[in-house]
Amino acid sequence: MRILVLGGSGFIGSHVVDALLARGHRVRVFDRSPERFRPTPAGVDFMPGDLSDSAALAEALAGSEMVFHLISTTVPATANLDPGADIRGNLLATQRLLELMRAQGPRRLLYLSSGGTVYGVPQHLPVPEAHPLDPISSYGIVKVAIEQFIRMEARLHELQAVILRPSNPYGPRQGHGGVQGVIGTFMGRLARGEPMQLWGDGSIVRDFIHVRDLARLCVAAAETGASGTFNAGAGEGRSIREILDLIGEVSTLEVTPEIRPGRNIDIPRVVLDIAAARQAIGWQPEIALCEGLAETWAWTCAELAPTPPHRLVGPAPLHRVGAAE
Amino acid sequence: MRILVLGGSGFIGSHVVDALLARGHRVRVFDRSPERFRPTPAGVDFMPGDLSDSAALAEALAGSEMVFHLISTTVPATANLDPGADIRGNLLATQRLLELMRAQGPRRLLYLSSGGTVYGVPQHLPVPEAHPLDPISSYGIVKVAIEQFIRMEARLHELQAVILRPSNPYGPRQGHGGVQGVIGTFMGRLARGEPMQLWGDGSIVRDFIHVRDLARLCVAAAETGASGTFNAGAGEGRSIREILDLIGEVSTLEVTPEIRPGRNIDIPRVVLDIAAARQAIGWQPEIALCEGLAETWAWTCAELAPTPPHRLVGPAPLHRVGAAE
Repeated sequence: MRILVLGGSGFIGSHVVDALLARGHRVRVFDRSPERFRPTPAGVDFMPGDLSDSAALAEALAGSEMVFHLISTTVPATANLDPGADIRGNLLATQRLLELMRAQGPRRLLYLSSGGTVYGVPQHLPVPEAHPLDPISSYGIVKVAIEQFIRMEARLHELQAVILRPSNPYGPRQGHGGVQGVIGTFMGRLARGEPMQLWGDGSIVRDFIHVRDLARLCVAAAETGASGTFNAGAGEGRSIREILDLIGEVSTLEVTPEIRPGRNIDIPRVVLDIAAARQAIGWQPEIALCEGLAETWAWTCAELAPTPPHRLVGPAPLHRVGAAE
Repeated sequence: MRILVLGGSGFIGSHVVDALLARGHRVRVFDRSPERFRPTPAGVDFMPGDLSDSAALAEALAGSEMVFHLISTTVPATANLDPGADIRGNLLATQRLLELMRAQGPRRLLYLSSGGTVYGVPQHLPVPEAHPLDPISSYGIVKVAIEQFIRMEARLHELQAVILRPSNPYGPRQGHGGVQGVIGTFMGRLARGEPMQLWGDGSIVRDFIHVRDLARLCVAAAETGASGTFNAGAGEGRSIREILDLIGEVSTLEVTPEIRPGRNIDIPRVVLDIAAARQAIGWQPEIALCEGLAETWAWTCAELAPTPPHRLVGPAPLHRVGAAE
């Protein structure tokens, strides 16, 4: 298939691109800049552009059979600082994308929403897709509105749409700048010998999914022609405290974070029910957490070594992160 | 209380203003234009302005103790034609209102959402407030997002907020231009001797609430200091066919609509569960439908008579309609 990956240079996007190429698909990436940690993979048609630039987007859409929309211009931790920018950069831009796709095609879309924020504080765990959507952050509110516009487009204008709600993806190429991804942030600080901060007592529970498991689900969803909305997690919860212990094990370093007050936008516990994706798409996560953490630690050390080949320069551009919390 | 009524010149707004004045409150109205069907009531401080004009809004907020936000720049039937305008005119503008109120006060807000659109197709009737929010129109998606931003503001920044979800308000001063309000539209056409159109077979069921009952609820919610989200309907359903029969009875005219195909944005049946408002606010609807329809018919005839005192001029400005479906 000829697939346009919006946000294909980001953390999740780069793994989705790998998975698509491995399955023989033709990949065009539309993003603000090329990948940060490696050269553009061979075979990728890279087009620079901003999601809000309709002309550039229209050009990128031409000739594509399906769109993977993985762009978020905000991250959960900071979207509340400027909800107007969140609404404009994500909701309005995605609404324009839907109109462009209606006008010129293609009529297939995969969208990465957010399993960690759209439900708000879960009434029960694990959270199935039918759980009420009651987000408590700008990031989650905007994700819900985007999902609903996509479902409306599917209903009224025959868009074939699959919406995935990832939990907390982790793995190689996640930024370690501290804006998103607790595992990447912890490992980055540990590798640099910097102090680590823990917000709250570490009892917060998240569902961590390896980014390659998530990427494989994206490709499987496209290939099976699935439509609908699916959670995308490991289906099991781990406390931040457990994660810190596991990071200590794989790094063989002492992990002693500074304790900071809990944040009122943090949801105490999220674990996703992934039965629907298992059943409809025939997918399941395969990479065990300890194995994924060991791999991620090795990547982090190589990346942050004194003279690595693709050394991290400057802060992470917010644009290129995928959906997560 | 000194209350700023955003959209106080509209159909619902004008009745809310009446109810506030009758209870001795001091009322400032912020709207694009004065009321359409009568002069500005004595005692009302009218300030012309647009919801998107932050400077004008900031001036209107000064000195107010509570804000009633009754403005919608779109109506359910047409918001889908331009969701971008819906997002900008309502969601972004309300988000800016919340920021302005956080910066300069007041810290009390009443917002009129939409009981007819936020739930989508109800899973069961009557619909309680806890029913999942699964809107299928731009109007409903934007209302849900606005509600969620208001609840977030209440949670994170101590806004005292009450959100009402009206069903289908009807009564005197509703426009009969055909853009919103099936009762006003039918009666307007009947009074002018014009053909009436029925979309579908008339089996669609709605919950019609008299606008003065709704206005009384708004004032009671403010006076009791209620916070939270409440349905605002009659709590009973009537089919469009029943409404047509009742209009025939009160008008003593023959009602024979032209049948048109049903619309895919119409939700088949909505009846609201109003137990929460009864209990928390001590309110209940008092005006029987047949009585309200007779009054509305009398008003329509007086308004559309050859030389009425406040004759209808030009089409209804969309800005001034309240929330409804």
